[in-house]
Amino acid sequence: MTSAAGAPTPPAYRRLGVEVRRAQIIGAALGLFAHRAPDEVSLDEVAAVAGVSRPLVYRYFPGGRQQLYEAALGSAAAELTLCFTEPAVGPPTERLSRVLDRYLAFVDQHDAGFSALLQGGSVADTSRTTAIVDGVRRAAAEQILLHLGRGGPGRRSAGPRLRMMVRTWIAAVEAASLIWLDEEKQPPAAGLRGWLVDHLIALLAATAASDADTAAAVAELLPLETAAGPAGRLADLVIPMMAGATRLLPPAPH
Amino acid sequence: MTSAAGAPTPPAYRRLGVEVRRAQIIGAALGLFAHRAPDEVSLDEVAAVAGVSRPLVYRYFPGGRQQLYEAALGSAAAELTLCFTEPAVGPPTERLSRVLDRYLAFVDQHDAGFSALLQGGSVADTSRTTAIVDGVRRAAAEQILLHLGRGGPGRRSAGPRLRMMVRTWIAAVEAASLIWLDEEKQPPAAGLRGWLVDHLIALLAATAASDADTAAAVAELLPLETAAGPAGRLADLVIPMMAGATRLLPPAPH
Repeated sequence: MTSAAGAPTPPAYRRLGVEVRRAQIIGAALGLFAHRAPDEVSLDEVAAVAGVSRPLVYRYFPGGRQQLYEAALGSAAAELTLCFTEPAVGPPTERLSRVLDRYLAFVDQHDAGFSALLQGGSVADTSRTTAIVDGVRRAAAEQILLHLGRGGPGRRSAGPRLRMMVRTWIAAVEAASLIWLDEEKQPPAAGLRGWLVDHLIALLAATAASDADTAAAVAELLPLETAAGPAGRLADLVIPMMAGATRLLPPAPH
Repeated sequence: MTSAAGAPTPPAYRRLGVEVRRAQIIGAALGLFAHRAPDEVSLDEVAAVAGVSRPLVYRYFPGGRQQLYEAALGSAAAELTLCFTEPAVGPPTERLSRVLDRYLAFVDQHDAGFSALLQGGSVADTSRTTAIVDGVRRAAAEQILLHLGRGGPGRRSAGPRLRMMVRTWIAAVEAASLIWLDEEKQPPAAGLRGWLVDHLIALLAATAASDADTAAAVAELLPLETAAGPAGRLADLVIPMMAGATRLLPPAPH
């Protein structure tokens, strides 16, 4: 424990060095996995990008590419989960718009890796990678439910239909992201985000029609929205259109 | 080519025999793969259920379990694709309700196999199984677009937004099916089907609000619907609810 020159590096510093080195390798791997399918990334490339030797990569990740891929995926999952964190202040549809903007920026940044992961058929598909992805989906669902006024300390938890609604919407968002990547990122991200928010609002309205719990949540959410925000704009466009549908309705009973 | 007793079986008959035997093995495999993950089904079991020897299973499927799984999956995919075939007669939402009833009956019947296939993380996940599943998704999207009045001989094809809408709805249907299986098939299939149809109607309305092609398709579909059908029922429930949203709208400009 002397601090004389030539003495061994203190353990705390050494541990920090290990973490930094590990993060450096994961960072390099993430950059490579982001734009190519995992099978197409070699450990030599990871070592070169990280500026370390191949044996060092193996010392940190003795399981090789699969272990490194899982570590990179875990790191990306943590980053993606952070995208969903949004203060519960202001109109809920605007909060969700900000969340989706961050999510789509993440998709844009990790394009090929995102596709490879979700489209499967890769050697890196294992129950562990599936579990990591499912963890992100669960975290996303909880965050979205929070903005819909359900869950969290001291608040009512969501009923099964509302919960299913949010989970199916997340699946729809994932599918839309993959199509978006496949179609050369058209429409621009802001257009896609707007449509995905409209999608959620429409889904809330349709689900509220047959589910009392969702109807109660919607009734609590409406006063938080504004005419100029996503919900107001959509109502403005859809209500006149609904006039065309009233023809279908049976005569009023009164 | 004599028909005397003891003469060799004619080739046509022999070939039929091969096809029948193959179908018999696939049928046995399908029954087993339907309720268990592919990794949990042994070739011995398949042989026993098909009433043939294990070497015979290998003669038909030299690639073993993986090849048999892919053949069974191909057969299930053909069956599932048939579910989507529905005459283009009557209110479109009622046609889609019948399609969804058949789809949910298929999900009900192949429950564990359906989950294992779509949730991934199985040894049987390969680019070939992914391609089979994607083929079914594409066929489903084309059929649904047909009922929305797009595609098919002599008709306008769907624009990119409407196409994306249908594909995201299919992803939402898949996700809802997996949740349904996970939650012990609650709500009953008819309730889930009703909600999925409402989901599509709401999505059409929201997409029509920002996409001219979808708006044109909806305008053509509306006269085909009835007050007593899914679209009429949903409009009946949602329009009064929308009254609560009009508060959000800016004052009318006239």
